[in-house]
Amino acid sequence: MKKLILPLLLLIFPRLHAQETHSHGRAIHFPDVPGYLSLKCDLHQHTVFSDGDVWPTIRVQEAIKDSLDVISLTEHLEYQPHKADIPHPDRNRSHEIAVKEANGNLVVVRGSEITRSMPPGHCNAIFITDANKLLIEDPLAVFREAKKQGAFVFWNHPNWTAQAKDGVARLTDMHKQLIAENLLHGIEVVNDVTYSAEALQIALDHNLTIMGTSDIHGLVDWAYQVPEGGHRPITLVFATEKTEAAIKEGLVNRRTVVWYNNTLIGREAQLMPLLNACVTIKSAAYQDQSSVVTVTLENHSDAEFILSSFGDYTFHAHDDVVMVAPNGITEVQVKTLEKMKSFDLKFSVLNAITAPRTHPELTLKVKVNE
Amino acid sequence: MKKLILPLLLLIFPRLHAQETHSHGRAIHFPDVPGYLSLKCDLHQHTVFSDGDVWPTIRVQEAIKDSLDVISLTEHLEYQPHKADIPHPDRNRSHEIAVKEANGNLVVVRGSEITRSMPPGHCNAIFITDANKLLIEDPLAVFREAKKQGAFVFWNHPNWTAQAKDGVARLTDMHKQLIAENLLHGIEVVNDVTYSAEALQIALDHNLTIMGTSDIHGLVDWAYQVPEGGHRPITLVFATEKTEAAIKEGLVNRRTVVWYNNTLIGREAQLMPLLNACVTIKSAAYQDQSSVVTVTLENHSDAEFILSSFGDYTFHAHDDVVMVAPNGITEVQVKTLEKMKSFDLKFSVLNAITAPRTHPELTLKVKVNE
Amino acid sequence: MKKLILPLLLLIFPRLHAQETHSHGRAIHFPDVPGYLSLKCDLHQHTVFSDGDVWPTIRVQEAIKDSLDVISLTEHLEYQPHKADIPHPDRNRSHEIAVKEANGNLVVVRGSEITRSMPPGHCNAIFITDANKLLIEDPLAVFREAKKQGAFVFWNHPNWTAQAKDGVARLTDMHKQLIAENLLHGIEVVNDVTYSAEALQIALDHNLTIMGTSDIHGLVDWAYQVPEGGHRPITLVFATEKTEAAIKEGLVNRRTVVWYNNTLIGREAQLMPLLNACVTIKSAAYQDQSSVVTVTLENHSDAEFILSSFGDYTFHAHDDVVMVAPNGITEVQVKTLEKMKSFDLKFSVLNAITAPRTHPELTLKVKVNE
Amino acid sequence: MKKLILPLLLLIFPRLHAQETHSHGRAIHFPDVPGYLSLKCDLHQHTVFSDGDVWPTIRVQEAIKDSLDVISLTEHLEYQPHKADIPHPDRNRSHEIAVKEANGNLVVVRGSEITRSMPPGHCNAIFITDANKLLIEDPLAVFREAKKQGAFVFWNHPNWTAQAKDGVARLTDMHKQLIAENLLHGIEVVNDVTYSAEALQIALDHNLTIMGTSDIHGLVDWAYQVPEGGHRPITLVFATEKTEAAIKEGLVNRRTVVWYNNTLIGREAQLMPLLNACVTIKSAAYQDQSSVVTVTLENHSDAEFILSSFGDYTFHAHDDVVMVAPNGITEVQVKTLEKMKSFDLKFSVLNAITAPRTHPELTLKVKVNE
Repeated sequence: MKKLILPLLLLIFPRLHAQETHSHGRAIHFPDVPGYLSLKCDLHQHTVFSDGDVWPTIRVQEAIKDSLDVISLTEHLEYQPHKADIPHPDRNRSHEIAVKEANGNLVVVRGSEITRSMPPGHCNAIFITDANKLLIEDPLAVFREAKKQGAFVFWNHPNWTAQAKDGVARLTDMHKQLIAENLLHGIEVVNDVTYSAEALQIALDHNLTIMGTSDIHGLVDWAYQVPEGGHRPITLVFATEKTEAAIKEGLVNRRTVVWYNNTLIGREAQLMPLLNACVTIKSAAYQDQSSVVTVTLENHSDAEFILSSFGDYTFHAHDDVVMVAPNGITEVQVKTLEKMKSFDLKFSVLNAITAPRTHPELTLKVKVNE
Repeated sequence: MKKLILPLLLLIFPRLHAQETHSHGRAIHFPDVPGYLSLKCDLHQHTVFSDGDVWPTIRVQEAIKDSLDVISLTEHLEYQPHKADIPHPDRNRSHEIAVKEANGNLVVVRGSEITRSMPPGHCNAIFITDANKLLIEDPLAVFREAKKQGAFVFWNHPNWTAQAKDGVARLTDMHKQLIAENLLHGIEVVNDVTYSAEALQIALDHNLTIMGTSDIHGLVDWAYQVPEGGHRPITLVFATEKTEAAIKEGLVNRRTVVWYNNTLIGREAQLMPLLNACVTIKSAAYQDQSSVVTVTLENHSDAEFILSSFGDYTFHAHDDVVMVAPNGITEVQVKTLEKMKSFDLKFSVLNAITAPRTHPELTLKVKVNE
Repeated sequence: MKKLILPLLLLIFPRLHAQETHSHGRAIHFPDVPGYLSLKCDLHQHTVFSDGDVWPTIRVQEAIKDSLDVISLTEHLEYQPHKADIPHPDRNRSHEIAVKEANGNLVVVRGSEITRSMPPGHCNAIFITDANKLLIEDPLAVFREAKKQGAFVFWNHPNWTAQAKDGVARLTDMHKQLIAENLLHGIEVVNDVTYSAEALQIALDHNLTIMGTSDIHGLVDWAYQVPEGGHRPITLVFATEKTEAAIKEGLVNRRTVVWYNNTLIGREAQLMPLLNACVTIKSAAYQDQSSVVTVTLENHSDAEFILSSFGDYTFHAHDDVVMVAPNGITEVQVKTLEKMKSFDLKFSVLNAITAPRTHPELTLKVKVNE
Repeated sequence: MKKLILPLLLLIFPRLHAQETHSHGRAIHFPDVPGYLSLKCDLHQHTVFSDGDVWPTIRVQEAIKDSLDVISLTEHLEYQPHKADIPHPDRNRSHEIAVKEANGNLVVVRGSEITRSMPPGHCNAIFITDANKLLIEDPLAVFREAKKQGAFVFWNHPNWTAQAKDGVARLTDMHKQLIAENLLHGIEVVNDVTYSAEALQIALDHNLTIMGTSDIHGLVDWAYQVPEGGHRPITLVFATEKTEAAIKEGLVNRRTVVWYNNTLIGREAQLMPLLNACVTIKSAAYQDQSSVVTVTLENHSDAEFILSSFGDYTFHAHDDVVMVAPNGITEVQVKTLEKMKSFDLKFSVLNAITAPRTHPELTLKVKVNE
């Protein structure tokens, strides 16, 4: 008897629902920015069609529960441990099952993982047209075929200790050649539960797209402790619309921010509009006769903001560090010395980086309620 | 990169939990019934003006947080342990402070606790006009003065082991006389964290109003574990309007239900309208081609309903016992054998009693959605 | 400085909550009974090797997280929707992958689902030696082959509305023949989120083993809302040791109790030792000078006990219904009228059934602490 | 019937206890430091004996629930709004009731609030011997009498907007005189829900003891949202033993750290030993063959640590900011480039300040497990 009456369970255990991790459940939430949608993407995932543990349908269901916009099932081309059981010769099969399951509710991008020893290590080619044609031994030839198919290609986990014993991402001559020939466009700064400051620096130095992916093999719920409030790494792609073409255009033009471990990682050009959309002033009013103004900051995202004030005024309840809870509000009481109609609050955003150990500065323009 | 550092995640997200024991916080919630408001009353409380631990303002604030409609500060007339510090001669003082604090947001009824050894033990006189005039030694004379003032009088904690070693409430000749002379109108079936089956039987046998009170001396939050989801005992009084006169009329005419320890205690005439208002049918629809109908029960109250089915049909997910969470819903799938337009569900309500170990029967008329 | 900015605090501490639905996480917990281990079994499950959504390894990992003792991956013999992708001819393959993953931490019993239209509908044969040999068209011949392999066979979801429109389990002549020939030994009283009172009656009338299974196809965590405190249905098998032989012996001799939707379903011979192991007296002491004794009931299981008192004494805080939280304690204050050294508490156990709407009676022998 | 069976409630609602805000309930927890006990003190509180809302017993019970070591009930000498009801002429009365209730489980220090308009505003004199003798009109004379009694005196809420419209603490000539004459020894940097950067600077510039107090008038649970995980401000006093003399010696010698709004405020001499006791290395081990070492940081306190790395190494999962949950652990994976036997981690502690916007640096010496 299959999936007969699933919704029932919600009703059987209603008093166990005491907990609601977010006001909107497990759905990941970030606001759009001026001119672009903020699309939530996880572009590196596996199923039983390479070395993953689930049928592609589960990947689609996980993504919909997480309210992702875009996924790609990037099965290893060269590593097929389940081949004895799943000898299917068509390397597009996983993608096709997922597209059917998604049924238009999720963009599923065709992709494959080119799985080589170092160099070049592992790379994902997404937006390809036929995975089977990538089954080519010569490494450069694979990348050229990917390019021929119009792929966006990124280097996976350059910090992987199986391929870099010290966990330090380093560009080889082959990578430089791939970049020079426009065969490599992005780099994973976040893969699974790792972050690489060195990969971020490579992205900045070589004009690569900053990527973050789950590289999930098992269950997202278990790997990222989703019921306890955890989340998989995602890449926010800023795109004009939710279509494959627009998503690819966003990736090619490096309009990404990675969210992982409560850190937002991106270039200033993308990070600042996002931060300005995430943290806004809800209200500002002087307390009675005093010149202390209560400013209510509102956080429209799942990130917990850690702000460090470097503006002119001291606060009536905080020293310099102010936290703003995910999708919550925080009151900051500002001592403006005399009553003002408007003023600026200036913060360094400690949970965001534009380069290793480099935090963007956020200026909030406060207009006091009359 | 697979399953590299899974345990880490547990540590990264330790603080995302949020819990809400009720959807409406600590406010106690019961629906009105046809013709009457269901007023939430706690008519036995103490402050520093007798042997309690707080100023009367705290009692008002607690009551408003609990969303009570009516309270009474029933200071002991004869027991004044703080007299050395608070020698105030006016026994109405506590009431007056509370009325001012309530500021119209809560009905505060003037009351006093007549505090005697057994018989008659302790009794509360509420709706009095002047507490000072009750300072009379002769016990019968006090009750007659209370009557003269128009009081509603009830016997407190008749099961108190300090006055009844075996915890069994027993009517004395003096109580019979008080009842006969219409000087005693109600009896506490619930006091603080105790319930008395014998007191309930006395109420039924002698036509007394069924009462439940907190008799709070310390803090309600601590005594009843409010933050963990607990609540003080209350008496629901069914009144035509939220005025002192209407509340008194409801009490005099025995229109009460006591809520305590998830049990609703009352006469059938009051309990049945309340149960019918608490548990309703939200929807009913047959599952596809089958003759199994999903009936959604909705609970509009803070009580957790424990229903025991004794109707004709078996269920597709329960045997006879069905729980309905506070302010929640439960689906019952009924096997009606053939498709019907309407039918009855019959339950014994195990969390409600009309007499000791006697549960009312609730018939829910189900009309199937077309 | 009084009450200056109270609302602020709510915002400062939004993230300090932590919740633990069980004291021991998601691991299911029931005590052993005299002479037997209480083994937690889920003997009806699917993977990608029939119509399920996961690789067999996930089934093993779920079971270990739930602290099950025994599982069986009972792929459909005749229904193979993934055959185009997984053409593996060996029907034992799913089992073998699971055994390897279990690595001795979990008993994995070889099984198959014989998947026919009604009659006989679907049946599971477990403890078989070779699934491939069950690929036989004639329905009776399959059961005879299963018997030849030493299988324990049970009828799946006899209440399935796809095969019984009214959801009512009914024995056909073919079932009677299977039972008569000792080819059918058990019946699912619980399958997934359904329960069948009629199946329970058939089990009792025809001396079949009472079974409960998840029949899981997707993820256990999602189907049974495990993070919110839900659980899959399990069959407790009372076995002398945790070996395949002992488990089979327990099943053949009908020593089972099913746990589902907070209901324990079993024959009195199995249910009573389990109930006595689950609910015990932790302590009992008279309160000071009174004859009211505080008896602490302790629940050593994940079931929430709903007890209905029918003994001689009334209680000081409850009427007849007493709840005992999973793995928790509850105090019952008993009015014994005079001080006694020992006495009995008698309860009907409303969350347990020995037949439809029939609850076992539990006598707790209280010995008062000196 | 008073406080008959309070523990019962815990048992009645056990399934509502899903939440445990700290592993040790609401008790505030900070470790001792080398040579000193870390005593938790709240030395500014009110009861009905001045303008508070509770009897002194409640203050003692709150403090014991919070696991405080030391309190003082500092009733206003000059502001007695309940005088009509509580005309008690002895200004030591509140203290005496509290001492009796504390019964040795809590140090209760005798104190009074000298309540004047600015200058000097409000000041607390604690460790006095007779509050009545402080009823002197001349402001300087009061301070001299306090000194005569051996008092430790601190300036209350110098940032109070009722006395400093812009919320900025400023020293007047009278304060300078009081300091010069050794009549004023400390200053509240934290009062209730406010913090004053300017008061902290005054403390540093004029060698005053850094103080933080609740100044509670209502209920601590409500004012600081204790059930939701909040806490009152406390002053940690580092004392050689838990005696009045040792506590006073610690205060006089400025050995304090204030904890409020997740910020630890103190001089480096006190803050560094405390931080070193709070955050320790639990373990450190290299991952397999790699040169990435997993260092487990352990937090032995209720503060949530916000650390900002400025050491030589990059991390494998964090950029520079690392959070360590209250009483929790966090793993930091350090890329040491080659395997080392020991190395240092260097952090700026963002939730601690030694001066406005000035954070101490914490060096953790890591010794790698063999």
